[in-house]
Amino acid sequence: MKEIAGGVTAAEGFEAAGVEAGIKYQNRRDMAMIYSCRPCVLAGTFTRNVVKAAPVVWDRQVVEESPFGQAVVINAGIANACTGKEGFACCRRTAQKAAEALNIPEESVLVASTGVIGMQIPIDRIEAGIERLAAAKEGTVQAAEEAARAIMTTDTRPKQAAVEIDIRGVKVRIGGMAKGSGMIHPNMCTMLAFVTTDAVISKDLLTKTVKEDVEDTFNMISVDGDTSTNDTLLVMANGMAQNEEILDGTPEYEAFREALHYVNESLARMMAGDGEGATALFETRVIGARTREEARILSKAVICSSLTKAAIFGHDANWGRILCALGYSGVAFDPEKIELFFESRSGKILIYKDGVAADYSEEEAGKILSDPEVRVIVDMKEGSESATAWGCDLTYDYVKINADYRS
Amino acid sequence: MKEIAGGVTAAEGFEAAGVEAGIKYQNRRDMAMIYSCRPCVLAGTFTRNVVKAAPVVWDRQVVEESPFGQAVVINAGIANACTGKEGFACCRRTAQKAAEALNIPEESVLVASTGVIGMQIPIDRIEAGIERLAAAKEGTVQAAEEAARAIMTTDTRPKQAAVEIDIRGVKVRIGGMAKGSGMIHPNMCTMLAFVTTDAVISKDLLTKTVKEDVEDTFNMISVDGDTSTNDTLLVMANGMAQNEEILDGTPEYEAFREALHYVNESLARMMAGDGEGATALFETRVIGARTREEARILSKAVICSSLTKAAIFGHDANWGRILCALGYSGVAFDPEKIELFFESRSGKILIYKDGVAADYSEEEAGKILSDPEVRVIVDMKEGSESATAWGCDLTYDYVKINADYRS
Repeated sequence: MKEIAGGVTAAEGFEAAGVEAGIKYQNRRDMAMIYSCRPCVLAGTFTRNVVKAAPVVWDRQVVEESPFGQAVVINAGIANACTGKEGFACCRRTAQKAAEALNIPEESVLVASTGVIGMQIPIDRIEAGIERLAAAKEGTVQAAEEAARAIMTTDTRPKQAAVEIDIRGVKVRIGGMAKGSGMIHPNMCTMLAFVTTDAVISKDLLTKTVKEDVEDTFNMISVDGDTSTNDTLLVMANGMAQNEEILDGTPEYEAFREALHYVNESLARMMAGDGEGATALFETRVIGARTREEARILSKAVICSSLTKAAIFGHDANWGRILCALGYSGVAFDPEKIELFFESRSGKILIYKDGVAADYSEEEAGKILSDPEVRVIVDMKEGSESATAWGCDLTYDYVKINADYRS
Repeated sequence: MKEIAGGVTAAEGFEAAGVEAGIKYQNRRDMAMIYSCRPCVLAGTFTRNVVKAAPVVWDRQVVEESPFGQAVVINAGIANACTGKEGFACCRRTAQKAAEALNIPEESVLVASTGVIGMQIPIDRIEAGIERLAAAKEGTVQAAEEAARAIMTTDTRPKQAAVEIDIRGVKVRIGGMAKGSGMIHPNMCTMLAFVTTDAVISKDLLTKTVKEDVEDTFNMISVDGDTSTNDTLLVMANGMAQNEEILDGTPEYEAFREALHYVNESLARMMAGDGEGATALFETRVIGARTREEARILSKAVICSSLTKAAIFGHDANWGRILCALGYSGVAFDPEKIELFFESRSGKILIYKDGVAADYSEEEAGKILSDPEVRVIVDMKEGSESATAWGCDLTYDYVKINADYRS
C-alpha cells in the first residue's frame, strides 16, 4: 500500500469540482461535485439521529434502491435539516438538475449538505452552482483539493487521503475527502465523507466492509458529543481498475479492506484533529481489555470527557479525570489493576499504577502534553482486546465558534 | 410549607462549623462539620462511577451497617479519590478523631471530600481541623453559612435551602447545603449535598424517599457530563421535632416528601446555575412525553449538548441544535409533531412547529435568551408525562477553569 495524491480523484475515472455558489457563505467555494465516468456500486452509512436531514433521507433511498450511483452534489453553509417537505423537494430538484447537466439518471445522483439547521436552501443558487460544477469538473489533484475546500464549514483545512494497492498485478486506488469540525460525534456518523475507488467489488461486499470499518474509524471520533442530523459516508466503486473481482475471504480482500481502513482512519483522525477550536489531536488507546466493545466504550469515554479535554488544552497531567471518565463509562473494571501512560513525540511516561499515582515528573508530563498530537494509553490488564478513539482538546475557541455560529 | 433560614442548622438539634484547615487552599475555610445532638437515621446515595473515592466507600458502609449517624466531616481541596489504601486509612483516622472529639461512636461519623483526584490528604491537618470544628460548632444561621462556604471548590457562592412544614400540628424542618460546580453529571450523583431534618421517620422510609427523589432532582442536573468519583448525598433525621412518626401513604408523608423535594430541587438548581464558568441557568422541560423515563432522557440530552450550551452563552436561538440533541438522545419520536418554546422572565415564544421554524422574531428570542435563567420547553405531543433537567451555558470561563484547575 502506498499513499498517493488526489483525494477523491485519485481513483481512475473520477472527477471533481468546487465552485462559489453563494448559498450562504460569500467569497469562498461552497459547492462541490464528485462525478464518475462510469456508474458505481454504492455503499453508505448515515446518522442514527432520529432527526435526519433531507439529504440523508434522499441518499439512503438511492443507496438502498438504485443499482448504481454516478455523482454527488454537496453544499456547505446550510444543512437542509428540519426543513420539512420543502427541504426534501430541494434534494429532488438538485438531483434532477445534476442528472440533466451530466446526462445521467436522476436516481444515480446523491446529495449532501452541511451547515446551519433549520434554514431553507435557495434552490436557484444550487441550480446555477450545478451548471458551473458540471462544466468545471476534472480528474486532477487540483480539482480534488477545490472540492475538499468547498465542503468545509468551521474546518480550518481540507481533509483528503488516497492510497494505491496492488490486486494480482493490477493497480487499484482508494481516495477520499471529508469535512467535519463541530457537531462531531458520529454514530453511524455533520461529518461528511466521500470515498472513491476504481476497484471491481460487489455492492454487498463493499457495504459489509464499509459498515464494519466505520465502527473502528468514523464512529470512534468525537469533537463535542453532538451526533449530527447530517452525518454521511458514501463510498463509490466504479470498477475502472479492471482488477479481477475482489471476493470475501481472499488475500486481495484483506488488502482492499486494509487500504479502505487506512483512508477512513486518516480522514477520521483529520476531523478529530481539526475539531472546532482544537489545538491538539487527542487519542486514547485502550489495550488489554476483555472485549473489543468494552475497549471502544472506554476509549471513547476518555476522549469525550470535557474535563479531560480542557486539561489537555492546559497541558495539565490531570490523570484523575481520565480515571473518572473510565469509571463512568459503564464498563466494570478494577481501578487498582489498570495502568495509565501519556505519550507523544516527546516521549512516553507511566502516570498511574496499583491504584495510585506513579512516581512521574510533572515537568516531563507537561512537555509530553504540549505536543500537537497527544496519546493516552490505558492498559486494563484483563484481556487482549484493544480500540482507539480520537478527539481533541476543549478550548476558548470552541466556545467562541459555537456561541455565535449562525451569524 | 415555608422557606426558612439556616441551611443544615435549620432543623432542631443540628450544629455546624466551617474552619480554615489549610488542606490545600490557603486563607479560606476548607473544612466543615455537621453535628446532631442526637443520633440520626441515615439515608445516602452515592456515585455510580466504578472509580469511587475512599470517603464514598466509607460512607456507604456507615449508611448500610450503622444503626445511626451523628456527624459529618467534610474537606475541600483534595478529593481523596484514586488514593489506594492510604486514602481509606485517612477516612478511618478522620472518623476516629471526630469520634474522640465529639464523644460519639466512630461508626456514626461520615466523611466527605471534594477537590483534586489522586493526591493524598495531609491527615495531621485534618486532625487539627477536627479539633477546631468540634470547638466552633453552633446551631446558628452563621455557622451553617460558614460550613456551606467551607465545602466550596470552584463554586462561586454557597448553596443552602431550608423549609418548615406542619405535621399534625408539629413543626418539622428540613434543611440542606451542597457544593458542586464542575465534574457535575450526577448519576446517583463532585457534588456533595447534606440534608438534615428533625422529623421522626424510619430509616427505610427515609431511604426510599431519598432514592426516588434523587431521580428527579440531583440526577437531572449536568454541568459537563463528567460523573464524579465523589458524588454524595447524605440525609440525616434526628427526630427532635417529636412529631408522630411519618408513615408511608399518609398525607403527612406527602407533605414530608414534597418538602424534601423542594430542598433537593433547590440545591440541585443552585449547582446547575453555578456550574463552572456559567452565566445562566439553563432549564429544559419536556412535556407530553409517553413515559417519564423518556421525558428525563430527552430533557437531559438537551442540557448536556455542548453546542446548545454554547448557543445559550451566545444568546443565540439556534434551535436546530436542540432538535439535534433530542434526536440523538436514544428516544424515538416524530420530529414533525413536536413543538419548541423558549421562555424566561422576558417572555415566551414558539420557535419550532410542524417540522419547520415557527414565524418568530430573532430579536425577541435573543432578548429571552439574555436572562440569567433560560428555559426550553419541548412538547412531544405523545402523552402526558414530563420531566425537567437543569444545566448551564458553556463559556470561556469553563475552559479557563478546567485547563488549569490543579495549579
